[in-house]
Amino acid sequence: MLVQEYYKSRGQLIEKALDDYLAPADQYPTELHQAMRYSVKSDGKRLRPLFFLATYEMLLGRKNINRLERILPAAVALEFVHTASLIHDDLPSVDNSDERRGKPSCHIKFGEATAILAGDALITKAIEVLTEIKNRNQALKCIAILTKAISTRGMIGGQAVDIISVNKKININVLRYIHYKKTGSLLQASTELACALYDAEENITITLGNFALNLGLAYQIVDDILDEVGSFEVLGKHPGGDLKNNKATYPSLIGLEKSKKQAEKLIRDSYNMIKNMRNNDIMLEFVNMIKERLP
Amino acid sequence: MLVQEYYKSRGQLIEKALDDYLAPADQYPTELHQAMRYSVKSDGKRLRPLFFLATYEMLLGRKNINRLERILPAAVALEFVHTASLIHDDLPSVDNSDERRGKPSCHIKFGEATAILAGDALITKAIEVLTEIKNRNQALKCIAILTKAISTRGMIGGQAVDIISVNKKININVLRYIHYKKTGSLLQASTELACALYDAEENITITLGNFALNLGLAYQIVDDILDEVGSFEVLGKHPGGDLKNNKATYPSLIGLEKSKKQAEKLIRDSYNMIKNMRNNDIMLEFVNMIKERLP
Repeated sequence: MLVQEYYKSRGQLIEKALDDYLAPADQYPTELHQAMRYSVKSDGKRLRPLFFLATYEMLLGRKNINRLERILPAAVALEFVHTASLIHDDLPSVDNSDERRGKPSCHIKFGEATAILAGDALITKAIEVLTEIKNRNQALKCIAILTKAISTRGMIGGQAVDIISVNKKININVLRYIHYKKTGSLLQASTELACALYDAEENITITLGNFALNLGLAYQIVDDILDEVGSFEVLGKHPGGDLKNNKATYPSLIGLEKSKKQAEKLIRDSYNMIKNMRNNDIMLEFVNMIKERLP
Repeated sequence: MLVQEYYKSRGQLIEKALDDYLAPADQYPTELHQAMRYSVKSDGKRLRPLFFLATYEMLLGRKNINRLERILPAAVALEFVHTASLIHDDLPSVDNSDERRGKPSCHIKFGEATAILAGDALITKAIEVLTEIKNRNQALKCIAILTKAISTRGMIGGQAVDIISVNKKININVLRYIHYKKTGSLLQASTELACALYDAEENITITLGNFALNLGLAYQIVDDILDEVGSFEVLGKHPGGDLKNNKATYPSLIGLEKSKKQAEKLIRDSYNMIKNMRNNDIMLEFVNMIKERLP
């Protein structure tokens, strides 16, 4: 099965689930529900939900797609949290981005106050959705995993350090922390949620969590490199944004060549962590896609 | 037992639990953890945690205070969510309040971006804390109750309508919705959490939930009245704030006399809902305190 086919079939499943869990746009208070829908149902890549499903199917094997129905709340929760983080990141007092995925950002379209609330509501909804997982032990475990990933030890911690590091000289350890936490935490949660819902053994959970952290860091370093030497087409946004925002990047701190080497090593390590697992074909293609973005 | 004594002993329990669950101020990322502590450990009344404990002890009876240890995560969660809502409400794009409880608001002290993240982190932490309740069924039930209370059907919904109603002519139904949701939802959650942790019968849970909603609305109407005719001492903030912010109040919509009558009726109804319950002395004093604020 090609990764494109996989994306398409699982992607449809994810889109439908997102739709099902979002309140209708005409439900009171309408502005708020519209804002939530607007940001979630924009043209996202659904990277985290797909990564989560790919992990689960690496463990379970590729069975009937109906077997995935039961675990969709976790896929939805991941995308809600990710969207909430984008809405709050785009705010004028944070990254001040007027555009997101080629459209006006949430606060431009609906105003800052509603955007703040839409982010709050999506974090809350993400966890509410997880309470609907039928197996109670698994539900509770998923909630513990997700809240940790969002917390000050995870995504929010990374964002906090990112914010206070703007216009400051930081070293590579701080930048690695930011990337690990801002991107890695939610990717790690994606594999951990899949493991929790499969009742996977602990050593598998840890290995796949590290795999996700590694790959997330690789992805960010490649992004940093593309910000320096990439094109709009490959990056999906205008290059030079980090420099413009006075944000440190891997190339700006350790140079282009060394950054490339580190990204390559991380990708190689990631590959090695899963190369002996069964049903790893889609996951290997994930790794490969990141490798191929490297200029 | 006088309500003051009750407040003092339970208050100490709550303060200690809040301290225990907050990350130390010197934990990385320090600004973020400092901001969370700053806002939580300000001079709050701890109304929701106390209301929650009073409900639980009305059901259980006033036993050894150690019996409350087990349910403290829910008390902490309520205060974290309440604090998060205050931090986000105070932001320049929302209510634009520079002061909170006589001190600079979170965004004045730590900057807007950190304040936004501190709010996000407190919502997340509130739910993470609930996962620590030992009884798994109860933990999951508490999470469902709290996420619903925060959601667009609860506190956030009320706040959203409040925001879009500024400078607009609204009718009394909309104002009642705002008060019910902004204040009532979390008070209702306080009694519902207590009921869930006591495994109370459903009819008790519903009665006490309505009691809380009623009392919350009464509290808000009294607040609206004090905003018109009260003093700084009774209100705890400068009167006239709602009018200054072009916010509708009960007196501005239906007049002072009618507002008073409605508040009195709600307080009487609340009283009647719990008057036949055992161990209701502290709760009745709660009702009485609200009655006595009425000028």
